[in-house]
Amino acid sequence: MGATLVDVETASLVVDIDTLERNITGAATFAHGVGISMRPHAKTHKTVEVAQRQLQAGASGLSVATLGEAEVFAEAGFGDLFIAFPLWLDSHRQRRFAELSERVTLRVGIDSSEAAPGIARASRNKPQVLIEIDCGHHRSGVLPAAAAAVANATARAGLEVLGIFTFPGQSYEPGFVARAAGQEAIALERAAIALEAAGHQVRVRSGGSTPTFRHTKDGIVTELRPGVYVFNDAQQVALGSCKVDDVALCAYATVVSVSAADRFVLDIGSKVLGADRPPWVPGYGLLPDMLDARVLQLSEHHAVVTHGEHQSAPKLGEVVRVIPNHVCSAVNLVDKLILSREGTTQGHWAVFGRGRNS
Amino acid sequence: MGATLVDVETASLVVDIDTLERNITGAATFAHGVGISMRPHAKTHKTVEVAQRQLQAGASGLSVATLGEAEVFAEAGFGDLFIAFPLWLDSHRQRRFAELSERVTLRVGIDSSEAAPGIARASRNKPQVLIEIDCGHHRSGVLPAAAAAVANATARAGLEVLGIFTFPGQSYEPGFVARAAGQEAIALERAAIALEAAGHQVRVRSGGSTPTFRHTKDGIVTELRPGVYVFNDAQQVALGSCKVDDVALCAYATVVSVSAADRFVLDIGSKVLGADRPPWVPGYGLLPDMLDARVLQLSEHHAVVTHGEHQSAPKLGEVVRVIPNHVCSAVNLVDKLILSREGTTQGHWAVFGRGRNS
Repeated sequence: MGATLVDVETASLVVDIDTLERNITGAATFAHGVGISMRPHAKTHKTVEVAQRQLQAGASGLSVATLGEAEVFAEAGFGDLFIAFPLWLDSHRQRRFAELSERVTLRVGIDSSEAAPGIARASRNKPQVLIEIDCGHHRSGVLPAAAAAVANATARAGLEVLGIFTFPGQSYEPGFVARAAGQEAIALERAAIALEAAGHQVRVRSGGSTPTFRHTKDGIVTELRPGVYVFNDAQQVALGSCKVDDVALCAYATVVSVSAADRFVLDIGSKVLGADRPPWVPGYGLLPDMLDARVLQLSEHHAVVTHGEHQSAPKLGEVVRVIPNHVCSAVNLVDKLILSREGTTQGHWAVFGRGRNS
Repeated sequence: MGATLVDVETASLVVDIDTLERNITGAATFAHGVGISMRPHAKTHKTVEVAQRQLQAGASGLSVATLGEAEVFAEAGFGDLFIAFPLWLDSHRQRRFAELSERVTLRVGIDSSEAAPGIARASRNKPQVLIEIDCGHHRSGVLPAAAAAVANATARAGLEVLGIFTFPGQSYEPGFVARAAGQEAIALERAAIALEAAGHQVRVRSGGSTPTFRHTKDGIVTELRPGVYVFNDAQQVALGSCKVDDVALCAYATVVSVSAADRFVLDIGSKVLGADRPPWVPGYGLLPDMLDARVLQLSEHHAVVTHGEHQSAPKLGEVVRVIPNHVCSAVNLVDKLILSREGTTQGHWAVFGRGRNS
């Protein structure tokens, strides 16, 4: 994170390109070193230029969260996409999915026997299927022992079972990261054994999140899907996944009110930073140049900040940087990311996949 | 809120027009009855068609949060706008503000003596100024006793002091709504007395939020600026500002996973609902057709819901409705609002002010 501020309108999101590129290269080097594929999650950046850098660094393809995200990345020329979600095709999605399946190499997630026939019927070129496993996050996904039944139904529907995937979201709690990585590996191994016992070949065992991926040992996980690592954010700093200097994206905000001695107010709020606020982060964002400061209160267009004991408050009109708690939420709120390198702006990238929620 | 679901792609936001129009008329009738002007906050809907209905119901103009919101509503033909924010004009905003000030009747907020000269210099047609008062929310705004100094500086800069405004955000806590309305009135009265003692005429005393505005007595407050009331949301239900039947906007979501007996998963998350989650709401949203259900966990594209004790879980592929906690956040995440009336869709409205954060 460069210390020199660039001159931009506030409230804006600014990407330090050198830090971004270092994050992409660092993760790619790690994955290469342990012999695991990278299929980074594009929901974080929703941006062609970041995706291109990920592929140039060796990623095998992209992960996306929705059919709509797959469509925009397909339009932009990305040909190998995994919809890492328990896909359910209603009548609206069947038509869209059929068109998409003709244009790109598709992998999709499934966590129920009921989902498979609809996907098989809707597909022109049949996608490869990964069965979603719950490794302890207790969101979607089946327990390892139930994976074979879903795989059997998938095969009966005429679809190819490629493997299994999981998301160790329980890693989002300080002190639990390494344990979550271990739970991920155990769940994937158990599910793989169950599938192989039922006669399925398990060629892909996909896991990985930004907090956990560097804890991955070779042998079980064959593919990693981190997303946030390209930018990092205040959650990752709190989890110990990165240092403040590894954060590549900041919101820029102007001090617009200093009417009380104990606080100042920025022209930024939940409509740029997002409202994510797990109890284990120190506030609604982190000020990298005033680490003692606390963003105590967040409205849609106001951030109320108390400065630390040993720091004086910035003055009216000063521009300060704020690291969002959850960068995926912040990026999805803006239409463009402003680029900076060594203290000068370098144009912008369009968040062209913003808002593709269906 | 109509009980009949319309056929839409999920995840989408759907507006029940009859309920919306009833909410707009109800608030206008209340304000008319107590003899107070309405200048509703357009940041909630960011939509031409809702703003038109508000003016048709008698609103004197619109409130907006940012210069960018003022610009888009000016482009759409709305000629009387109040930027209800402590405006600070940096070099980028000075040029934009100058252009805007030529085109519409502008009111702006100020809470510092330092802000006034910049606004005066940048304006072609000078805006009217309202001094922001802190009535207990402790965000921006000066204490009533400090209002005269800001008014004096405003007048010295050559700007017209029209009056004072405040936002009783401390009303967002169950049981504190009536008290917040009282604090609003007291702070406005004290500030008005201070300004008048300093020789300023106080023609506008602007207050009002969705939780408090119906508690407003005549006599002190001359203008109300509620925003959320057009749609309502789960926060307003929890605060007692409205009933579930008064909620005019719901997210539609599909059940995509039922892999565990104690929960089901919807294809909707913080990228459509927003992540707002004050401790006094029961979850990350409210299911109006399953009020016992709890949205326990929210990711970007997953909502994990436990159904109530006496209800069975919906089936895979079923569509359910979710009331967002904070509708302003939800609307700002989508490009369009789908319209429904008596169970049929009626086209859509563009959220044309979405993302105007600068």
